[in-house]
Amino acid sequence: MKNIKVIAFDADDTLWVNEPYFREAEEKFCGLLEDFIPHHTVDQELFKTEIKNLPLYGYGIKGFMLSMIETILRVSENTADIKLVEKAIQIGQEMLQKPIELLEGVEDLLKKLNGDYKLVLATKGDLMDQERKLIKSGLEKHFHHIEIMSDKKVSDFQKLLKHLDCLPENFMMIGNSLKSDILPVLEMGGTAIHVPYHITWIHEEVSHTIVHPNFYQVKNLGDIYELLVK
Amino acid sequence: MKNIKVIAFDADDTLWVNEPYFREAEEKFCGLLEDFIPHHTVDQELFKTEIKNLPLYGYGIKGFMLSMIETILRVSENTADIKLVEKAIQIGQEMLQKPIELLEGVEDLLKKLNGDYKLVLATKGDLMDQERKLIKSGLEKHFHHIEIMSDKKVSDFQKLLKHLDCLPENFMMIGNSLKSDILPVLEMGGTAIHVPYHITWIHEEVSHTIVHPNFYQVKNLGDIYELLVK
Repeated sequence: MKNIKVIAFDADDTLWVNEPYFREAEEKFCGLLEDFIPHHTVDQELFKTEIKNLPLYGYGIKGFMLSMIETILRVSENTADIKLVEKAIQIGQEMLQKPIELLEGVEDLLKKLNGDYKLVLATKGDLMDQERKLIKSGLEKHFHHIEIMSDKKVSDFQKLLKHLDCLPENFMMIGNSLKSDILPVLEMGGTAIHVPYHITWIHEEVSHTIVHPNFYQVKNLGDIYELLVK
Repeated sequence: MKNIKVIAFDADDTLWVNEPYFREAEEKFCGLLEDFIPHHTVDQELFKTEIKNLPLYGYGIKGFMLSMIETILRVSENTADIKLVEKAIQIGQEMLQKPIELLEGVEDLLKKLNGDYKLVLATKGDLMDQERKLIKSGLEKHFHHIEIMSDKKVSDFQKLLKHLDCLPENFMMIGNSLKSDILPVLEMGGTAIHVPYHITWIHEEVSHTIVHPNFYQVKNLGDIYELLVK
């Protein structure tokens, strides 16, 4: 892969733990509404609210908090104790203050790649929250550029490349989401490495198998360096 | 001002109407809590919540919505009807869907400057919401670069300049907030033009008078062109 000059990394569940925190929060939230609907269906109701609000709120914890609150109102038909709203806010504020837990091999890989490639962080989500996580992670120094994107569609990646003055054939994306990190990059003509994470948000799931000459899949970040120097 | 090469514009209340929408929303919100505290003190309680949450939520409507809800809980000591929470969400969702109303002279100025200067949009706030407003405004085409910043401190402007490969003496910022658009830019060595707007959020207010060789103040955006070609 000698043509690669810019390597972009997704952040959540690629560099550090994220989705498990959402699952943990959802689990707590399900417990709040057991008086109204069965525990396991709360999740589905919350997901419905999230998807409805996505065009308005975008990705991130603040939107998630507002969707939890809206779900309490809808599911209880405005009869829930207002203290449940307080608990939902607590769940969200705890999420916003979680420590950053780096995934295995992250620092080692970034150190090895630095110098040979221009490293970029390309992450979706809430501006304030993603910046907070990046600073806490201590990884900022490895990146030439940080791009916090409101979405990861083909057009969003095209804008990023224009901005970086980089051709698609010189661009590689590494991430855990087939839908957001892999498919749009392949469509644009770039290279993509999928590093699966054990939990994926249902909204990010892709059901079909990807077969593409510029598509790679590795088990761990540690396997990427070997792939690159081949 | 022949040394100026890059001109950055603030967006909210510099290019388009914003603060009046917040005031309108606050006014509606004050009405919701009249059963608990006097109308005019609700504002102060909301402001207290907003400032407390600023480090966690950052700027923008979603954080404002969460702070409205938290204020309902605190002021009513968890005794308010949960329907008030629903109303606060409605107030916020309406704000997120407001049309964009350009301020006078904006398009004309941008057209005149385009070509002679590199134009940048440098705005604070929520990523998704600011992008939405920019697209709705139809002004995107005038800007070489869009920077949505989580804050506007000196270090944030320094990062922006590094990114734009621009020296402070070649940089000019135009905005309505002395605190966010003017003071940090002057401190960094740049030039700043203040275009006051008739309403300013109390958090953005500055009490002292600014005297600085690189500081200018104009009544309208329309006056800027003349100032530049002097």
